[in-house]
Amino acid sequence: MAVNDRSDCPINLAVELFGDRWTLLILRDLIFADRRHFRELLRESDERITSSILADRLDRLVAAGILTREDDPTHLQKAVYTLTDKGVDLVPVLATIGTWGATHCAADPAKAAPTRELAYRLPESWSRLMESLRDSHGVLPSR
Amino acid sequence: MAVNDRSDCPINLAVELFGDRWTLLILRDLIFADRRHFRELLRESDERITSSILADRLDRLVAAGILTREDDPTHLQKAVYTLTDKGVDLVPVLATIGTWGATHCAADPAKAAPTRELAYRLPESWSRLMESLRDSHGVLPSR
Repeated sequence: MAVNDRSDCPINLAVELFGDRWTLLILRDLIFADRRHFRELLRESDERITSSILADRLDRLVAAGILTREDDPTHLQKAVYTLTDKGVDLVPVLATIGTWGATHCAADPAKAAPTRELAYRLPESWSRLMESLRDSHGVLPSR
Repeated sequence: MAVNDRSDCPINLAVELFGDRWTLLILRDLIFADRRHFRELLRESDERITSSILADRLDRLVAAGILTREDDPTHLQKAVYTLTDKGVDLVPVLATIGTWGATHCAADPAKAAPTRELAYRLPESWSRLMESLRDSHGVLPSR
């Protein structure tokens, strides 16, 4: 991305760091499945990330301060990835994505269980915006 | 993506549809800036999306049932994009992304204003998971 494509909108700055399918799946595995080693992240998910994409996305997450990478004292030659506070603060993003997927996609009910535990009541400011979008876009609420 | 890479995890199904920087920025523009025509989406944002990426992402969003595309009765030869209910239900995803960006990135305060209006209190189930991740990842909360 060229320098003149930058924007300091908070949504843009955030999606520059993690707005990528593989990055979001790696964060899912760290947050919900306690996968903290490269090999676990590579092999234990259904989506079959490649090792070069995984290495690239982990490096970006470390550079962004969302993860740290340290030597694992219990496994020589292995690194362990750890969420920072900035990384833990991504739980709401994953929770809302998972809730949307469980509501609108044909998800496996067993795999949707961790998401269902994070079901939430819409804050009033969100409902208000959604109501106003339904009005202006002529949408009838379906749920 | 090959068929055998599919997974019916709700987070995966969701990010297959919108887990892409440009898609999330288009949704931002539709939700927060009322940009509903191709030309507005192409020209009025700081990030300078290209017309081929914009056309591709709009087609995908329409195929996913997140947007509909209709002829605009007030502008011959122009189409208008409209959020469906499934699209309006992405407000929580954009709200949590924006809140994260406004908290953790050097965002322009003026551009963060719409996000600040969507500030929310963490649901208890989210706080519990975040607390448990802070424990297991050895993170000291910074806020």
